[in-house]
Amino acid sequence: MKRNIFENISPLDHRYSLRENEFNDYSTYLSEKSKVKYQAQVELALVKALAKRDMCSTTVVEEVETAIEELTTEEVYAEEKKTKHNIRALVNSIQAKVSDEAKPFIHFTTTSFDIVDTANSLRYKKAAEELILPTLKELEKLLMNIALREKDTVQVGRTHGQHAVPVTFGFSIAEYVSRLGNRIQEIEAKSEQLKGKIAGAVGAYNASHLFFEDPESFEADVLNELDLEASSHSTQIVEPEYMTDFVHSLVSTFGVIANFSDDMRNLQRSEIAEVGEHFGEDQVGSSTMPHKRNPINYENVKSMWKEFMPRMMTLYQDQISEHQRDLTNSASSRFIPELIVGLLASVNRLIRVSKKLVVDHENIQKNFDQNKEMIVAEPLYILLASYDHPDAHEAVRKLTLEAEEKDKTLRELVVEKEELKPYVEKFNDKQKKLLTNPAKYIGIASEKTEKVVEKYADELDIELSI
Amino acid sequence: MKRNIFENISPLDHRYSLRENEFNDYSTYLSEKSKVKYQAQVELALVKALAKRDMCSTTVVEEVETAIEELTTEEVYAEEKKTKHNIRALVNSIQAKVSDEAKPFIHFTTTSFDIVDTANSLRYKKAAEELILPTLKELEKLLMNIALREKDTVQVGRTHGQHAVPVTFGFSIAEYVSRLGNRIQEIEAKSEQLKGKIAGAVGAYNASHLFFEDPESFEADVLNELDLEASSHSTQIVEPEYMTDFVHSLVSTFGVIANFSDDMRNLQRSEIAEVGEHFGEDQVGSSTMPHKRNPINYENVKSMWKEFMPRMMTLYQDQISEHQRDLTNSASSRFIPELIVGLLASVNRLIRVSKKLVVDHENIQKNFDQNKEMIVAEPLYILLASYDHPDAHEAVRKLTLEAEEKDKTLRELVVEKEELKPYVEKFNDKQKKLLTNPAKYIGIASEKTEKVVEKYADELDIELSI
Amino acid sequence: MKRNIFENISPLDHRYSLRENEFNDYSTYLSEKSKVKYQAQVELALVKALAKRDMCSTTVVEEVETAIEELTTEEVYAEEKKTKHNIRALVNSIQAKVSDEAKPFIHFTTTSFDIVDTANSLRYKKAAEELILPTLKELEKLLMNIALREKDTVQVGRTHGQHAVPVTFGFSIAEYVSRLGNRIQEIEAKSEQLKGKIAGAVGAYNASHLFFEDPESFEADVLNELDLEASSHSTQIVEPEYMTDFVHSLVSTFGVIANFSDDMRNLQRSEIAEVGEHFGEDQVGSSTMPHKRNPINYENVKSMWKEFMPRMMTLYQDQISEHQRDLTNSASSRFIPELIVGLLASVNRLIRVSKKLVVDHENIQKNFDQNKEMIVAEPLYILLASYDHPDAHEAVRKLTLEAEEKDKTLRELVVEKEELKPYVEKFNDKQKKLLTNPAKYIGIASEKTEKVVEKYADELDIELSI
Amino acid sequence: MKRNIFENISPLDHRYSLRENEFNDYSTYLSEKSKVKYQAQVELALVKALAKRDMCSTTVVEEVETAIEELTTEEVYAEEKKTKHNIRALVNSIQAKVSDEAKPFIHFTTTSFDIVDTANSLRYKKAAEELILPTLKELEKLLMNIALREKDTVQVGRTHGQHAVPVTFGFSIAEYVSRLGNRIQEIEAKSEQLKGKIAGAVGAYNASHLFFEDPESFEADVLNELDLEASSHSTQIVEPEYMTDFVHSLVSTFGVIANFSDDMRNLQRSEIAEVGEHFGEDQVGSSTMPHKRNPINYENVKSMWKEFMPRMMTLYQDQISEHQRDLTNSASSRFIPELIVGLLASVNRLIRVSKKLVVDHENIQKNFDQNKEMIVAEPLYILLASYDHPDAHEAVRKLTLEAEEKDKTLRELVVEKEELKPYVEKFNDKQKKLLTNPAKYIGIASEKTEKVVEKYADELDIELSI
Repeated sequence: MKRNIFENISPLDHRYSLRENEFNDYSTYLSEKSKVKYQAQVELALVKALAKRDMCSTTVVEEVETAIEELTTEEVYAEEKKTKHNIRALVNSIQAKVSDEAKPFIHFTTTSFDIVDTANSLRYKKAAEELILPTLKELEKLLMNIALREKDTVQVGRTHGQHAVPVTFGFSIAEYVSRLGNRIQEIEAKSEQLKGKIAGAVGAYNASHLFFEDPESFEADVLNELDLEASSHSTQIVEPEYMTDFVHSLVSTFGVIANFSDDMRNLQRSEIAEVGEHFGEDQVGSSTMPHKRNPINYENVKSMWKEFMPRMMTLYQDQISEHQRDLTNSASSRFIPELIVGLLASVNRLIRVSKKLVVDHENIQKNFDQNKEMIVAEPLYILLASYDHPDAHEAVRKLTLEAEEKDKTLRELVVEKEELKPYVEKFNDKQKKLLTNPAKYIGIASEKTEKVVEKYADELDIELSI
Repeated sequence: MKRNIFENISPLDHRYSLRENEFNDYSTYLSEKSKVKYQAQVELALVKALAKRDMCSTTVVEEVETAIEELTTEEVYAEEKKTKHNIRALVNSIQAKVSDEAKPFIHFTTTSFDIVDTANSLRYKKAAEELILPTLKELEKLLMNIALREKDTVQVGRTHGQHAVPVTFGFSIAEYVSRLGNRIQEIEAKSEQLKGKIAGAVGAYNASHLFFEDPESFEADVLNELDLEASSHSTQIVEPEYMTDFVHSLVSTFGVIANFSDDMRNLQRSEIAEVGEHFGEDQVGSSTMPHKRNPINYENVKSMWKEFMPRMMTLYQDQISEHQRDLTNSASSRFIPELIVGLLASVNRLIRVSKKLVVDHENIQKNFDQNKEMIVAEPLYILLASYDHPDAHEAVRKLTLEAEEKDKTLRELVVEKEELKPYVEKFNDKQKKLLTNPAKYIGIASEKTEKVVEKYADELDIELSI
Repeated sequence: MKRNIFENISPLDHRYSLRENEFNDYSTYLSEKSKVKYQAQVELALVKALAKRDMCSTTVVEEVETAIEELTTEEVYAEEKKTKHNIRALVNSIQAKVSDEAKPFIHFTTTSFDIVDTANSLRYKKAAEELILPTLKELEKLLMNIALREKDTVQVGRTHGQHAVPVTFGFSIAEYVSRLGNRIQEIEAKSEQLKGKIAGAVGAYNASHLFFEDPESFEADVLNELDLEASSHSTQIVEPEYMTDFVHSLVSTFGVIANFSDDMRNLQRSEIAEVGEHFGEDQVGSSTMPHKRNPINYENVKSMWKEFMPRMMTLYQDQISEHQRDLTNSASSRFIPELIVGLLASVNRLIRVSKKLVVDHENIQKNFDQNKEMIVAEPLYILLASYDHPDAHEAVRKLTLEAEEKDKTLRELVVEKEELKPYVEKFNDKQKKLLTNPAKYIGIASEKTEKVVEKYADELDIELSI
Repeated sequence: MKRNIFENISPLDHRYSLRENEFNDYSTYLSEKSKVKYQAQVELALVKALAKRDMCSTTVVEEVETAIEELTTEEVYAEEKKTKHNIRALVNSIQAKVSDEAKPFIHFTTTSFDIVDTANSLRYKKAAEELILPTLKELEKLLMNIALREKDTVQVGRTHGQHAVPVTFGFSIAEYVSRLGNRIQEIEAKSEQLKGKIAGAVGAYNASHLFFEDPESFEADVLNELDLEASSHSTQIVEPEYMTDFVHSLVSTFGVIANFSDDMRNLQRSEIAEVGEHFGEDQVGSSTMPHKRNPINYENVKSMWKEFMPRMMTLYQDQISEHQRDLTNSASSRFIPELIVGLLASVNRLIRVSKKLVVDHENIQKNFDQNKEMIVAEPLYILLASYDHPDAHEAVRKLTLEAEEKDKTLRELVVEKEELKPYVEKFNDKQKKLLTNPAKYIGIASEKTEKVVEKYADELDIELSI
């Protein structure tokens, strides 16, 4: 059934699916078509396991293999119109394509959710492995490169939106190398532990036990074909916490890139202007203000986060299923693909925009200079304290007020104050130097940047171009 | 651009859009195509208002009218590919279809969000008026009919899942007539107050003030063409609270039908079985348990509620926009149509399923009988108390324990107890009768049912078939 | 039972309850003590209504009046320890203080939630009227005064964090006068419609119908004593949507002040520095950076919003109660007072901080000057377009790029360009002036500010000092 | 500062803190008092690390040790009233108790959030280890015992609220043994990885680098005193994802016990009545219906889950902090203790109620019998299919309809149908037996129950009484 995409409801199916190659990637794992395809894979795995136990011939396996290759989503949906049951429709559609000999082995002893839950775990696991993690690593690599490139670019550190003590721009980016790297590891861990089940209608292997002495090992055989394991207990469905954890790993990753985007948005403010996005020649910033260049990509990522983050609540609610399960998690779990596409679309956007990230070193310097005299306050207080000044914090706080009033620098005032002399004299050279060159007061920002990048490049097996 | 719907990501664009007439209704107001259509309407309204002030000729109006009729979403998107700005793309696309004379009046003095926000308010208002409210009223009417039909069907009332004192099944349904009726009124009120704006890039009418002495009255003229009003202040965008309230009215309506669905689900439990859903001849309940008939429609509604309710959080987050606005509510607000379709699909489902709701009077009676002797406890306590028994609640509580132990009815015990005689003798006939026929202890359940139905039929202008 | 407040768990019961007069106000309506007090009021109203119908003597009313005055929360809780039921404990406690004659009339025909729900509606309504709305109006008034005072202070408008066209600082504040004013009206409307009920255990007036022919009018009598009404239908509980709407009005108000706080935070950034907060002499900004002055109050309000906003999800979940009610909304609804106190504490904080809001006119001017030449772009484009330039937006966009490259002002370039001369010559004087003085390009910012303030001062009955 | 607890706002500080020994446990880790205590521990660890490097004498360590033992929250708060800064207040308060020699080493080179974040990680880690995990394990053990005890109690399995194929009651409980066991492991893992930091105001070790060549190893020394590690990067704060993961582990645990509670609630329905809660002699079920015994404890747990689950959204929002941090996560993160106490109070409640869980074997049997004839449908279909019936599912589905119509059992019909004979004859003895005794159709429910219990008893080191 074909449709003009602009008649679709979801922005993911029109506006945010215009880049064809990206959308094809998403669709491969996350469309309804892919869902049915993975469900058919589970039916195939079942037959393979039966064949291994000589309960059916290998011809049956071949038949099913061919059948599911030919199978279209349209057929299955047409059948569902009659049966009003999606998995029965799938089974019927496969059976219609195989010999009478093969028919009984399709769906043998299983219940719908053996297929549905196993197929979902399988495709999300594959999506993680083949799409989500590679995409995130591409962004991670871009951030690593920026971090290394800018590791010595002195930038004012900002806390509460106020100038604090300095860092480097690379160090600021290293924050996201670290947090994103950590989330990549979490997604990896939580996707790998997604579980399947072949335990029947209520999880007690009622039907399979009719044929197998140890139905758990038959379950293991089927899942093994798909590189999955069973959870320690099932009802009609897999224990929900594995999926809950997996989606949490995605949602918390979304939070990291939303924070990164907020930082980049703020650094693009007219008054700050430390970074920019290279604009296309024909690109319009505002329909009415021709001079504007807006951080629309970062705004978009933040906005997508606001849309998708709350959906974690759905997962938490779906943990609750009465007795051996109710079906109230069925429709809702069909929307998990939206969340994954929302995340992927945002990461892909950041990849594109990070490639053309422009760093304005002049403005970074200018902003640093604005308060560099005040930056001296922290090391001054700490040094005074370390050289036994009884009330260093208070002394410096008053000095900063005086500096403001008299429009002098702290450095000038320090020298003027008789009462400070006994302490200042004890400063060693390195310490004195900091007072005259606040740009040196960056701690180990550069080294730390390198270290963070190395750690995650190593652990995530990312090869850096530099 | 055509696409196989099964390649779509959102279940709303494949699985839940298979009923063509329903989907067409949704698409008319809630697709990307409709969005662009409504935006073009706002551009037209602008030109009309200019013509009324003789700032352009009526020919210009006609030109624009023709242009936007011909305009396709595809054209606008093709243009956006160049400009990277959706409203500039719309403006260019319209301008390309009109004479040079008309060109300058397109988008005259306005900013993108004058168009975007006004168009959204317009289409959601129209969607409410023409689609959401009529659909809800259809469900309301069905509920009203069931309530009236079953107003005298004595049913055990349930609190904490425990049998309490009796109601009638009609009274149970009247709860939802009342709550849904109340929500219909809230949606009506909050959709009617959605606001537009023609106040320019920062809301101060900077551009329009170049041409109009009183730009607010020009804004009123434009909005008047669309039957909208402006809020008391705008920035680049309309004050967000009007949309927040509107979506709250939808989300809280979703809660009411989710509760109704939960009740129906529970009344379908095997042990309760008071209601059922008429099954199609070929319909399969379970892929493995051929005997099952599951309350899948009510489960689906509950599940959709779990998916969409948390999205209210997005609206609350979108209340926050920095200074004269940031764009972080742009992508997220594009998903509001999903929520509306989610609600509509659920209401339509309930309409279908309510039409074939089967009430099992035998089981209702059977369940009532199970504890009817115990039901006497409440009136007994109250009557004893009213006839001055000093500790009636305690006396009856102990009596119920005794009844359980001795496997007798409360009625029997009451007569046996010498100490209660002085009080019981004072009971009037009506009161004594209640003790012998607990089914009479339904208060004013029937009358109240009628009253609730009448109230909302009247206020919502619903004509009842009975 | 006394306890050191620092042993408490909730920050509302230690850290945020140190200002004694504020905390006392909260506690008056929102503590457990106040809850019990209001429940006792409902029991009193019941007896009053009985006396009006001559079902009990006025002496009984007097007895109950005295009893509930003496009643302590401690007594009720001690009794609950025995009965394990809070309302039965309340009833027993009152009965213990009255004559045998009066005892039977306490709680006569009612169920626990007749008392609980009615008392909650009553106290939240009172809290709104006597505490929430007055507090919000005090903030509203302060904002009005700032808006009027600064209505002519030209400030650069900011969209996407980028300098756009100008507004005035008063106009920026007027946004919040308008949005907060609108929310005050919403809270007023939704608190006034909170409902009570005296409809018994399942809402069908089963018990009261034993004694009253028209139990609804008896219910009306009781509620009338409390200035409340009943909803059109009840089960064991009041229809939940009234409370849902009320809390939505509070949560959406929280969003408005969170947005205001975000704006103020951002305007305090070191690079922007348009507003500040007057610091106390001894106040420390940072434990290690003695020079810092952080916008901690605005940060706090944003943070509180993040804590309390998601709790709306609890209200939405609590809309769902099985059949004639389950109790799964009982514990959760006990936390609504937390949300109200969270809001009030934030509003009170903003009141304190707004009183010492410092506006730095110099910096506002400086920031405006930074891009004032570019601001000309919008009126220039609009004027060119209005004088029939065929492609004005594009022409100006290129001009801004050229201006950037050549480091010239738009004004200078406009005059140089031969191709623009024919259009520019047509500009009238007012229009030409704008090009030379961008600060005039503020539209009707000042007038609009006045208008917004007047509207809400009038509608909310706020007397302005200016 | 002492206060009557009934004047408190939070139910956690009045209603849910009446069990003194439980509340004391909570307060030990989760009150404001405990917070300050843990912060002081971090200041002590700092001095210890300095002493190890011979930067101060061990006397200083002893002085600080004594000082923080004497330190009261009241003192710190009194000091904060002056400084308006909580950590500066802590530092001043400690300094006031030590010699001039020791003073400079207090808080040496650190920033407030070195202390705050490290202290929070420390106390939540300790709370997990010493309170949360032991409490959860106690519940886990109780569930294990019930599961084992009831492993052979045949119970009808329920999907969609409908009778499906059988399980055992022990198997139903084993679901929660498994899911809770899994969550215990997740909490353990995520609490152990909570991080600290001693990296200064912006995370670049600016201040500490003044004194240490390798400030990271100094940080490691300090954290080592507290058995903590640093994350790979810090800003002013620890990377938020560690706390986000930890709270997710708690919230998802809450979901598991909420589901358990829902199941128990539903099994207590009047019509089902398979489990009950032993009632106290004096306990009142309803204030007006003296015969009622409500599942209030399970309702309470579900209700608490509804209150606390949405708060995860606060954690997700708090992942976002601008640049080297803004303070908008400060107030909100102060509410994490509420969530932990909410969870603990619920788990403790379930411990109490599980100890007196009454299983009604008669009703379990009765409910199973209700549909046991229909249960045969599944194995029948599967066996027919396995013996090559071409359309087994459809054949059995029709048979169930016929059985309903004719009021016969499936077993009877199977024998009557000529067309089924050829298949049924092939059934082996075990398979035939199932058709005559549906109670045998429990798969491996008992063995699986044992296996699940063994697995988690082993992995969690829980010693079972049986």
